[in-house]
Order: sequence, then structure tokens, then C-alpha cells
Amino acid sequence: MGNSTEPRVVVIGGGTGMPVLLRGLKDLPIHLSAIVTVADDGGSSGRLRTELAIPAPGDIRNVVAALSDAEPMLLDLFQHRFAEGNGLSGHSMGNLLLAAMASMTGDFYRGIKEISRVLNVRGEIYPIANHSMNLHAEMEDGTVVTGESQIPKQNKKIKRVYVSPTPVQPLPEAVHAIKSADLIIISPGSLYTSILPNIIIPEIGEALRETKADVTYICNVMTQEGETSEYTAADHLQALFDHIGNDVIQSVVVHNQPIEQKYKKAYARENAEPVIYDIDRIKSMGIKVIEEDIIDHSQPMLRHDTSKLAQLLHSML
Amino acid sequence: MGNSTEPRVVVIGGGTGMPVLLRGLKDLPIHLSAIVTVADDGGSSGRLRTELAIPAPGDIRNVVAALSDAEPMLLDLFQHRFAEGNGLSGHSMGNLLLAAMASMTGDFYRGIKEISRVLNVRGEIYPIANHSMNLHAEMEDGTVVTGESQIPKQNKKIKRVYVSPTPVQPLPEAVHAIKSADLIIISPGSLYTSILPNIIIPEIGEALRETKADVTYICNVMTQEGETSEYTAADHLQALFDHIGNDVIQSVVVHNQPIEQKYKKAYARENAEPVIYDIDRIKSMGIKVIEEDIIDHSQPMLRHDTSKLAQLLHSML
Repeated sequence: MGNSTEPRVVVIGGGTGMPVLLRGLKDLPIHLSAIVTVADDGGSSGRLRTELAIPAPGDIRNVVAALSDAEPMLLDLFQHRFAEGNGLSGHSMGNLLLAAMASMTGDFYRGIKEISRVLNVRGEIYPIANHSMNLHAEMEDGTVVTGESQIPKQNKKIKRVYVSPTPVQPLPEAVHAIKSADLIIISPGSLYTSILPNIIIPEIGEALRETKADVTYICNVMTQEGETSEYTAADHLQALFDHIGNDVIQSVVVHNQPIEQKYKKAYARENAEPVIYDIDRIKSMGIKVIEEDIIDHSQPMLRHDTSKLAQLLHSML
Repeated sequence: MGNSTEPRVVVIGGGTGMPVLLRGLKDLPIHLSAIVTVADDGGSSGRLRTELAIPAPGDIRNVVAALSDAEPMLLDLFQHRFAEGNGLSGHSMGNLLLAAMASMTGDFYRGIKEISRVLNVRGEIYPIANHSMNLHAEMEDGTVVTGESQIPKQNKKIKRVYVSPTPVQPLPEAVHAIKSADLIIISPGSLYTSILPNIIIPEIGEALRETKADVTYICNVMTQEGETSEYTAADHLQALFDHIGNDVIQSVVVHNQPIEQKYKKAYARENAEPVIYDIDRIKSMGIKVIEEDIIDHSQPMLRHDTSKLAQLLHSML
């Protein structure tokens, strides 16, 4: 990191997919930047943003943990979640540290930088915005739902998502990172609630259009109830196109192997199914398809294989 | 620190007086150990000990901060207190970190060691016990008050304090540190609620009697409402004698200059007055008197001069 001749790779996302991807990328000889959503309003993050008037820290916390080279005990502490305590229960230590740092400095992004320094984080972490933002979804039936955590719970087909206040001012450093990147990766993760809240911000969309870097989307392997039920890979892409136009993304990475029965069973409980990789339709959309076996077959839950993905992405530079 | 030929100095106490003393001692070429009360039941500490079933972390936190060589930003974070937030307000980050570490490891003392390592603490920090304890006071009028934070609020003359459960098991490492010390310092601080809760534990009293080290008591400079109103220096000593016998302490350090008017005014609001240094009475108790100007005249509030005290104590080795 920090070597100015290293290729500049930007990952945009949030949720649980992003840290998996970043763990693989962090040891490559690249200048890595992570641009992370702050639109969460559920759980510990949601309580902190409401009570302390800070952007939601949870997605950032998981990215800090993924990119940190700190000793395991310290990371365990950072990720520790209080199980008891009036008002403490459910809060994770890392969220509290980010919140305290934001309160102390009056600047959420500066707080992230300080925590990143202390935890020996490799690469740069940028919150998509340095202030709170809200996510709204307009459903196919015309109803509007507010709140990232509420949207998938409706179990309705989502027409579009948008953020407020309008216009959201993205972090200037995030915009700059996109414009000066050599490769931009749209992370796997909840399509409407972790990925789109970043890229639908107008200035971020413009930067993605302006950058000379290729933009590649790593498609989810499983559908997600209340967001992408029955979505094929092309449907994921189409949802992105519907929000940001069809001139932003150049390629998509899809998993091209059948999903093993053990995973299907586990995910059936969440009404999640393998995403069908309808390659011909993607190609007809003018998008390059990069297909590979990209899951980690040794994990009890379905996870991208962080090393395989990292090597694949590195080969694209 | 860590050099086995360095003289071993043990400081026993808690509250706000102890960190001031330790800051001066930490840079001396000595092996420093701090033995700290965990009997607090007020504020953030009190809530955490009740809600998470851990010993009170607050006194330990202030000692960690005093002995830490971490960068200022990190110490500010450790000492940051949340001003807002349902259930968070009033909690300090350091207390939460100590609580999280205790929950994670299931061992409060181990948590302190880990936090001390991360924050580059010089010397050893021992909680007087590795479990919660309660402080009780029997007043001169025969009433009994439970809870460290409640005792001074009664504004009654205290006859004696005692702890439960009986007998409190002190941390073995604390007992060992006392037995192998070259000098033992009883810190300034709230006599009945920060100092005595440590030394009234029977095994600690025995260790203080067994040790070959001199035990010196640094007397408070001001009286404290609800604890030591109208107490002279000899009265402070007599209270210690009444609890642990008159064969434990060999010397007392007293401030021998009149208190400046600016301090008297500020403390009058708390009904606190300068402690009269009745040297002849102390001498008649068989105690060596070490008298010196030991306050820091540059501070807005009355504080011991940490450098002067450290030099004075070092000269006693």
C-alpha cells in the first residue's frame, strides 16, 4: 500500500459480501480503497446513528476488521458484541469506538482514519458520505418504504431505491478515488440495500462514468428474499442499469458452477436460491462476462472464495 | 520496567489521587505495580458491574490511562465519555473496553492485562480482587450504609468500613507484589472509599505486615465532605490504624505549607478544608513524618505535584 506506482483498485459496497472480497485483495501489491455505505438503520448501527447523530458505523466496522493487520485479540475486541447491559446489549465494540471517535473529532471520516491507523488497516476506507443518509424504496405496487433494514422485510418487488437528503454529498475523497482508479469493483452484497445506496448518489454515478478504469460487478451467488428473489445474473445487472444507466459497468464476474446441495438446503430456509447465470442475456446487454468457480467449497455457508476472487481481479489489471 | 534489579514499588489506592501519583512514578527506573480498588458502584462503573457482572472498571481505567505510553489520541479515545445515547450516555470508552475484554476472556484481570499491553502501559496493574465486591460503612450513629457511592452522601461520621462477600479473595498477584516490594505507598485519595477498601481485606493486611518493605502513606491535602471533614493528618492515620492496626505503616508524607486562598475558595464550595498537619501527634503515634511542599501550585484545582512526589518517594528507596 502507499506505493504510488501500484495499480489503484476501488471496491464499492457494504454488508457482508464486501469484507470477504477485501480480505483477499488486501495482501495484493495494489493500492486498495474501499468505499462503504452508511445508510444502515438497523441494529447497533441504527441505534447509534439515531442517538448520536452519526453515519451508520456497522458496514465500516466490518471493512476495518477485514483490512486490519492488528493482532487477533484486538480484532476480537473490535468485533465484540455486548450480549447484556441496559442500552449496551447488541452494540459492538467497533461501532462504539467509531461513534466515540466521531463524537470526539466531530468528523466521522476522521474518526475512521484514526481507528484505521490504530488497527493497522491496509488501504483506504471511505464512507460514501460523511453524514447520515436515508434509504427509501419505491415498490412495484407503488408503496414507498423508508429505512435500509425495513426494505427487505416487506417482501415486495422493489422498483427503485433512492436516498435522502437530496442531493447526498458524497465524501470528496471517495469521488477522487473513483476518478483516479485503475480498476473499480462493485462488490457482491445486498443489491438494493448495500450496493445501490452508494452508486445511486449522482456525483458517484458521474465519477464512475468519467473514470478511465474498467468497472466490474461481482454478481451475488444466491438470491436474497425481499430484494432479489428469482433474479438471474442479468436481472441483477438490469437493476443496476435501471438506476445508473447502461454505460457504467463494463464486465460482470459470475459463478459458473452448480451450487452444492448442502448450501441449497441451508439457504432454502431463507428462501434464497442460486442465481442463474444467464450468460447469453448478459452478453446481449453489451457486458463482458467473466465466469469462474468463485465460491469457497470448504465453508459451511456459501461464501465467495476470497483468494480465487482476488487472483481473478488482479489478472484483470 | 521489567528490569529485575530495579526497586519494586507498589502503590495501593484508587479514585483521582492515585493516577496523579502514578504519572510521576512511571518514568522512574523502578518496577512499578498499582493495586487498585474495584469497589465503586456509582456512575458508568456501577452500571457496568451491575449489568455485566464484572468488577467496577472505572478506577482501573484511570490507572491504565496514567501509566499508558500510548499516543494522546488513543488515550483521549480511552477516556472519552459518551454524552448522549440511550444506555450509552455517561459510559466512558475505557470502561466499555475493559468490560468487553472481561466478557470476552471471562477474566477481568486478564482483560486488564490485554488492554494494558495494547495501550503500552508501564508497570503492572492489579485489581484488588478479580470479582465484584461491595463496600459498607457503619456510621458513628450505628446506621449501616452500603455502596461506595452512597457512603459520603450520608454526610455522617464514619466509624468503620468493611467489604463483602466475606472474606474477599484478593488477586494473588497483588498479594505477591506487596510481599516482594521494596517500597509500598498508600496513595492519597478518598480515605474510606478508595484507600481502605483495599487494605481492609485480611490477606492484604497480612501481606502488608509480612513484607520487608516500608509502607508510607501519602496524606490527603484537603478534607473530604462525608468522609474526613475536620480530619487532621493524624486523624487520617488513626482511621487507618483503627482498620488495620498500628503496626503496618512506618511513615507518612504530609504537605507542610499553608494552602493558598484561591484553592480554599474553590474547595469551600465542597465543604473541604486544608488538612492540618499535626506533626507532633503523628510522631507520638510512632510514625515517621516526611514533610514537604508537595502540591502543584500551577494547577487551578489542588493537586499533588506528581514530579515532586515521585522524587521524594524515589529518595526513600
